[in-house]
Amino acid sequence: MKLIDQPKAPNPRRVRIFLAEKGITIATEPLDLMKGEHRSSGFTALNPYQTIPVLVFDDGSAISESVAICRYFEELHPEPALFGIGARERADVEMWNRRIELGLYFRVAQATRHLHPAMAAIESPQVAEWGEINRNRTMEQLALLDDQLARHRFVAGGTYSIADITALVSIDFMRLLKIERPAGLAHLARWHAEVSARPSAKA
Amino acid sequence: MKLIDQPKAPNPRRVRIFLAEKGITIATEPLDLMKGEHRSSGFTALNPYQTIPVLVFDDGSAISESVAICRYFEELHPEPALFGIGARERADVEMWNRRIELGLYFRVAQATRHLHPAMAAIESPQVAEWGEINRNRTMEQLALLDDQLARHRFVAGGTYSIADITALVSIDFMRLLKIERPAGLAHLARWHAEVSARPSAKA
Repeated sequence: MKLIDQPKAPNPRRVRIFLAEKGITIATEPLDLMKGEHRSSGFTALNPYQTIPVLVFDDGSAISESVAICRYFEELHPEPALFGIGARERADVEMWNRRIELGLYFRVAQATRHLHPAMAAIESPQVAEWGEINRNRTMEQLALLDDQLARHRFVAGGTYSIADITALVSIDFMRLLKIERPAGLAHLARWHAEVSARPSAKA
Repeated sequence: MKLIDQPKAPNPRRVRIFLAEKGITIATEPLDLMKGEHRSSGFTALNPYQTIPVLVFDDGSAISESVAICRYFEELHPEPALFGIGARERADVEMWNRRIELGLYFRVAQATRHLHPAMAAIESPQVAEWGEINRNRTMEQLALLDDQLARHRFVAGGTYSIADITALVSIDFMRLLKIERPAGLAHLARWHAEVSARPSAKA
């Protein structure tokens, strides 16, 4: 089993942090998106959607999509639970992970893909107007997250979960486009310092 | 318990089809996005992200995000399993559901929100150039899905799953902008006829 990975890309980092929190070590193999390696016929056979990360099994079959890979490892290694325990908590974690993905991560990713010069290699054509709209809307998303973190230690409640991983990766991804966190979001700053200090954040 | 719903919107339909497949009936309450009811203070207190559907519990707490709501019901009513059975099948269903969401559904939604005149009420400003890019990329997404359906009866393999629901809703959502399915995608047409004939498709 191996993970096709990219050290600087945000989605593979989600899986690496998840595995570090579980204490799981697996082989990794880098793939360079900027060189277009995701469009090679070999990689396309593994993942016709040409995204990373991809988990490749010894029989040659594969799973793509970061959260699908994380959920696979959650099933095999249930502890510590990173998708919640019980019907309601699992629904809350799913809800918050999706709110962060479709809200914050989406905005940062669209801004970066449409505004950063290096991203012209993977987002063509870039639409600057759409990028700017998303850069601005990132601020609303950070304020919504700050509000949740005013009432809860972690993104989905009292326990660290995959929603914290998605939020951490989204916020750190803002650095590429030099999107600044607005001053005054004290709860977000408190949470960011706490989750960044976990050993998994270096994964 | 009640579901805040909108008869014409695609995401609430995902939950209605899911519940119909499970044989679950719950009370629904309509919310009119076009009238901006999702921005009311009462609804924002239930869901600060202002999206539908929302599942409201009798204690006043709530779960938003379609897939979180579906997963909650899957935990309570495991059969028929719509998220897969066992670690690998669950990962495959999650992968395919996300491929359809982030590929096909995303493209159709972005095209519709940025090109349909009625959507100016919920997507402002509309960026026509970005809408057209997404309308065109919808075709690539349909071809990828046709290729999967050439080899499998359903989207995630041999069994009907939430990935079929997401794909059906995405394709039917194309009607609003009159995006035509290209001729020649025979496997997609075969699958679409089959899943549309299930009683749940009318939900």
